Amino acid sequence: MTILGAGVMGSAFAVPAVDNGHTVHLVGTHLDDDWVDSVAETGWHPKLRCHLPDGIKAFRNDQLAEALGDDTDLVCLGVNSAGIEWGADRLCEVLQRNHPVIMITKGLRAHATGFENFPTLVARKLDAAGLDASRVAAVAGPCIAGELAARRESGVVFTHQDQGYLDWLRQLLANDSYYFVRTSTDVDGVEACAAWKNFYALAIGVPSGYLDVRAPAENGAAMHNPAANLFAQAISEMRLLTTFMGGSIENVLAMPGTGDLYVTCQGGRNSRLGRRLGAGKLYRDIMAGPMHGETVEGAELALAVGPALERLCGEGRLPAERLALARAVCHAIAQNAPLDLPWSHFHPPPA
Amino acid sequence: MTILGAGVMGSAFAVPAVDNGHTVHLVGTHLDDDWVDSVAETGWHPKLRCHLPDGIKAFRNDQLAEALGDDTDLVCLGVNSAGIEWGADRLCEVLQRNHPVIMITKGLRAHATGFENFPTLVARKLDAAGLDASRVAAVAGPCIAGELAARRESGVVFTHQDQGYLDWLRQLLANDSYYFVRTSTDVDGVEACAAWKNFYALAIGVPSGYLDVRAPAENGAAMHNPAANLFAQAISEMRLLTTFMGGSIENVLAMPGTGDLYVTCQGGRNSRLGRRLGAGKLYRDIMAGPMHGETVEGAELALAVGPALERLCGEGRLPAERLALARAVCHAIAQNAPLDLPWSHFHPPPA
Repeated sequence: MTILGAGVMGSAFAVPAVDNGHTVHLVGTHLDDDWVDSVAETGWHPKLRCHLPDGIKAFRNDQLAEALGDDTDLVCLGVNSAGIEWGADRLCEVLQRNHPVIMITKGLRAHATGFENFPTLVARKLDAAGLDASRVAAVAGPCIAGELAARRESGVVFTHQDQGYLDWLRQLLANDSYYFVRTSTDVDGVEACAAWKNFYALAIGVPSGYLDVRAPAENGAAMHNPAANLFAQAISEMRLLTTFMGGSIENVLAMPGTGDLYVTCQGGRNSRLGRRLGAGKLYRDIMAGPMHGETVEGAELALAVGPALERLCGEGRLPAERLALARAVCHAIAQNAPLDLPWSHFHPPPA
Repeated sequence: MTILGAGVMGSAFAVPAVDNGHTVHLVGTHLDDDWVDSVAETGWHPKLRCHLPDGIKAFRNDQLAEALGDDTDLVCLGVNSAGIEWGADRLCEVLQRNHPVIMITKGLRAHATGFENFPTLVARKLDAAGLDASRVAAVAGPCIAGELAARRESGVVFTHQDQGYLDWLRQLLANDSYYFVRTSTDVDGVEACAAWKNFYALAIGVPSGYLDVRAPAENGAAMHNPAANLFAQAISEMRLLTTFMGGSIENVLAMPGTGDLYVTCQGGRNSRLGRRLGAGKLYRDIMAGPMHGETVEGAELALAVGPALERLCGEGRLPAERLALARAVCHAIAQNAPLDLPWSHFHPPPA
């Protein structure tokens, strides 16, 4: 297996592969040189903060063709969402023959009447390059990279239209001790959940920021009630957006929806940005200051699809009054405005 | 409003009522004398760890009739789940006329072919005592008592068959600043979620206990992946149990389901018991030792319905293979056995 993207998730994804006896070539982007060099020299991944197991060989980006060689059976795309076009183009540039692909990168792009998920985007680019576009699968589900690298019991979902291909991938990568793989042919549903969950995790992190500016309560009360209120609103909005995108409600209820949203709320960059917005800071000030240089997937999504979301609501294609949380967060990020959560508008009664 | 049960939730429920200008009489059970005396003397609730606002008058249990007086407009039942029969009987004993009732207490009782929720149980007892059983509503949703008492933004759902009665309750108790009330006529769905969520929060707490016995990971990795795997499995099982009990999937997705499960996983007694089970301790040893004297609602539910759950699975009324988490937890608690989570059996493919 050759993985493009030596960040935390790309690197962690190598662990179950190696444990199943496969050889993994881990290739950095042009931004990953320091990590690649460290893994190559000592096995230590400075960002994952652990030693990667033997059987993983690290390559710099300009060695991608060498890493692929002529014996790669599976290509994994694991760049961050902002780099998806770059990553897909890079693959198209170096692939000499048709490979099965599995994608870690999550996100969406807007078009005139809706949103395109990343497996579709990558397949489109492979096809345009004259390569086989029929085997672009994706992996989603509640899986923090550091915990996967530590072999914590993790459940994920592989998704693709073809069950036979999914079964092949599952047999290649799953195990019965810590990497529990389920499959779904509902690509639209899995990928909608996987993308929107980063965005909503950011939103659910907002109330914790209130504590940074309000007088603390006598009893030390935290902000779990407001976060839980938003969690349920997020699931409701994810359901709407997922079905709008052609996905099924089943994956909203399952690991890609409820499970992944839960795990993404347990900390990480989305939550930290949400907290600072909740404390009254402006998006650009946060990204120029305390979170300088970090990629926040939820904010990237807001920037990528926020204007389209607003337009689709205006055209009546999406129900504006049922997407109050998404619209509030998109507004704050895209307009660099204070974030004001419209509590009274959440959980509107059925139409 | 007269509230029976001066524990944390009964007492916190008085806060939005008083803020809306109502007079609240808070009546303890026979176990709450110390709290009642403290509230009566200084307003300080030792368990909630805050001062209750003026307008709340505290009474000992033997003063229940006096507290009710002849001007109580709404009775609230807020005892713990183990005391539900006692609480309902106590109301039947002292009520001189028909009162609207709103219930905080959550739980289920088993019968031959299924489970009975607590509003139904209380209505049955009121009816048997010759009292009006048609106005027993309930409140559910993601609401930790200490945060409600601190006026954190909290969303809840009032449930009853009659929308007109719900609208009256909502107007009585809701506000637009921190107590956001939604309504649902799906009593079976709301109450199923409200009961089972305690049980599943206990289950989701289990993996954190693994960290107490395993060698820690190099990178300090936590146990959020396993917990999130269980979270999604719990939602899937709650959906099954809710629809089995005649409820709708809508409330599983909304505040009573996803929202309340989320908030209940953020700490509390269910999580603490789960963690100790995860560390390999036995239920009875935990309850005789470090958690002596505490009521753990999730464990109470396992004891109350575990045998019936197993029987209903055996009879084919419930799908055993899709309730692997519930069955594992019930077994460990009812049989006082080590808890072994069957990871490979979670998220079974569709039948």
